[in-house]
Amino acid sequence: MSIIPASHSDLFDLPAVWHVATIGPSGEPHVSPVWANFDGTHIRFPHLEGRQKWQNLQADDRIALSATDPDSSERYLEVRGRVVAFEHEGALELLDAQSQKYRGNDFPRGDAQPLDKRISVVVEPLHCTTMG
Amino acid sequence: MSIIPASHSDLFDLPAVWHVATIGPSGEPHVSPVWANFDGTHIRFPHLEGRQKWQNLQADDRIALSATDPDSSERYLEVRGRVVAFEHEGALELLDAQSQKYRGNDFPRGDAQPLDKRISVVVEPLHCTTMG
Repeated sequence: MSIIPASHSDLFDLPAVWHVATIGPSGEPHVSPVWANFDGTHIRFPHLEGRQKWQNLQADDRIALSATDPDSSERYLEVRGRVVAFEHEGALELLDAQSQKYRGNDFPRGDAQPLDKRISVVVEPLHCTTMG
Repeated sequence: MSIIPASHSDLFDLPAVWHVATIGPSGEPHVSPVWANFDGTHIRFPHLEGRQKWQNLQADDRIALSATDPDSSERYLEVRGRVVAFEHEGALELLDAQSQKYRGNDFPRGDAQPLDKRISVVVEPLHCTTMG
């Protein structure tokens, strides 16, 4: 059984924007939006090697994500966990699948450059808070 | 001139959900949604004394907020800053004004109990990141 409650796991199937919090270089909180999915065990979101979140997560793998239901903003899920992998394999497939979910089409290859820096950040969920 | 760019300050006028990141008791990131406004100098969001975010901010006043445009999820603003006050005065007025913005009516008084714990968290913005 997953730590993500069945009552709120559908948020990963909706085009709900996830806001990812990490710890910055001086221990300060950062937060920015990502696309994300959930395979029943791990949360994955597309990212690029070298970016700020990647840098933060190299130093501190603790992470939190929250999203609201696009049709009911008082229904939400917060997940806290740890990053357990940065995957190169399948990164473009995840990016395209998420682009399909959120935009309705594959991710444009021009924007996806450099392709070899594309990764999937893999999160093990450890604690959840829900509302609604 | 505010540190919040004019190009994105309208996000505070829309019913855009803000995701607030704070540092938890063990230095881990937390993030959860709030209603927020911006008066040209400070960001304020309604909260309750004693809650997790309040506890976190007592220990570490560093904070980050991000929101996407409800009509264009790739247009976003991230703000990093510090909490400069927890205001009791005006807390119910802020709560009602935000409830009007997000729900279209005043905040139900039954839910707002205990009224004397209602506060406005006041954030000084120090750094912004935008997209779109």
